[in-house]
Amino acid sequence: MKITAFAGGVGGAKLAHGLAQHLSPEELTIIVNTGDDFEHLGLTICPDLDTVCYTLAGLANPETGWGRVNETWNTISNIEKLGGPNWFRLGDQDFATHLERTRRLKEGKKLSEITREFCNAWGIQHAILPMSDSAVRTIVDTDEGELPFQEYFVHRHCEPRVKGFRFDGVNSAEPVIGALEAIESSDAVIFCPSNPWVSIDPILSIPQMRQVLENKKIVAVSPIIGGKTVKGPAAKMYSELGIEPSAFAVAEHYRNVLTGFVLDTTDANLEMNVQNLTIKTLLTDTLMNNLTDRARLANDVLNFVRSN
Amino acid sequence: MKITAFAGGVGGAKLAHGLAQHLSPEELTIIVNTGDDFEHLGLTICPDLDTVCYTLAGLANPETGWGRVNETWNTISNIEKLGGPNWFRLGDQDFATHLERTRRLKEGKKLSEITREFCNAWGIQHAILPMSDSAVRTIVDTDEGELPFQEYFVHRHCEPRVKGFRFDGVNSAEPVIGALEAIESSDAVIFCPSNPWVSIDPILSIPQMRQVLENKKIVAVSPIIGGKTVKGPAAKMYSELGIEPSAFAVAEHYRNVLTGFVLDTTDANLEMNVQNLTIKTLLTDTLMNNLTDRARLANDVLNFVRSN
Repeated sequence: MKITAFAGGVGGAKLAHGLAQHLSPEELTIIVNTGDDFEHLGLTICPDLDTVCYTLAGLANPETGWGRVNETWNTISNIEKLGGPNWFRLGDQDFATHLERTRRLKEGKKLSEITREFCNAWGIQHAILPMSDSAVRTIVDTDEGELPFQEYFVHRHCEPRVKGFRFDGVNSAEPVIGALEAIESSDAVIFCPSNPWVSIDPILSIPQMRQVLENKKIVAVSPIIGGKTVKGPAAKMYSELGIEPSAFAVAEHYRNVLTGFVLDTTDANLEMNVQNLTIKTLLTDTLMNNLTDRARLANDVLNFVRSN
Repeated sequence: MKITAFAGGVGGAKLAHGLAQHLSPEELTIIVNTGDDFEHLGLTICPDLDTVCYTLAGLANPETGWGRVNETWNTISNIEKLGGPNWFRLGDQDFATHLERTRRLKEGKKLSEITREFCNAWGIQHAILPMSDSAVRTIVDTDEGELPFQEYFVHRHCEPRVKGFRFDGVNSAEPVIGALEAIESSDAVIFCPSNPWVSIDPILSIPQMRQVLENKKIVAVSPIIGGKTVKGPAAKMYSELGIEPSAFAVAEHYRNVLTGFVLDTTDANLEMNVQNLTIKTLLTDTLMNNLTDRARLANDVLNFVRSN
């Protein structure tokens, strides 16, 4: 069975990692959101891409889910002493990724090419593709005006009230080379449990992406459990946009593309509502606290895809 | 007594540090070579400037003389793992300096302004000035062709045979604001024991610099002791240029500007030769192995300046 997974940050990376335990490199392609990439300290930083790569390489910090394990913080703390910007916490090992990526981008290499080179260096077998090689930047419209995503997310701790989103550059962005082919040849596309608004929607907003998804088997795993997000601001965003945050709200969000939906057993009461959207459902334990959980959830999702 | 010191890297930084023990911030200005600055990993790196600053701040690695004390190397070792350039060893704390300097340069700030801000953050009271705010780049002409200084010095370990030097951009470079005024109001200019070819000559090559030095009391401390350099390629350069490396060769190098010269007691036999160039001499122990040595040599040099 061939699968293409769409992923954002921590939650998405965990399921992608689980899928990689069951599927060979030929069977799995992971397409990652680059909408929250940004330029900081002169470096091009790709938080979701790095989280997915670090997670698959076994280099991720198991406590935070992002950044590197056994990390040190000597560079950022010295930037801080010099009075430089310290709101985006970058570790010393992590800095290497951004420095070297930025250097290669300036040499004229494509982000996808650099990502492939990094994956080789980190011993990652599965294909991890940035959604596009052209820059797409998520802009959050808030009650304080428009904010670049990381400004909203990290610098302002998601405090401004959300009014909407736009993905700067998405209309002229092409899917990364290999993405359309991977999706076309896949038996199903899985939306990992990532933020619908700012992790999966940017990928779906790339013009050619929607077309290739038509008539595909598409299964999403809810990032919302019991009305709350495991991590990140998805639930808060739903509330501020006037929608009650729930797994059902996620299914409804994707209703035009979805064929199947995976909810946590906690949300059994919402299953029928999702089915009423003519979306098939799987009820299972979706919380991923450890490596075993990731592999188990991935297995459940793959069985659900197979049987539907 | 007011002093302006010209300094390059490790040896120069040590004497500058010694001078700072005896002279107040009003009495001492340190002008530092920027000819060996370069762009690497997208960062503007100023090795001599940083060595002088780290040394005066007490942040320098006492074993190497350059870089930071208690340094870690997690960024560069991860750049190495990614297959990036690893020939220029930058520590994690040190990276902060280059990242934050590069960020401020891109904001439009001048190198001298940034250096002042960094000195404030590091608790340095004395004025440390880059020789110019415009880029001057030392190019080494070798038997393998022209090489940018760090390419010759660090990447190629000074292996190619030297044929000459040029300082790219020096003809249009102006002395940094405050340099000419500092020199004019100084009782003497001291050339610290730095490489004459690539540390002091770039400073002297700035067009307006020579003029302001005319009729000044100028004392150089020999970086060559017993025909050898304590650190760096000065002696090797003299040899390859067909000049026997010695303290005398250094005095002769500077003969058109020098009024006084400080030689190590080891080189007592050369004292008369230097005096024959109508340059006054001081014979003293010039090796600086520890903080006490720096202060003692600085005191000897200042007494020599006072009495001549």
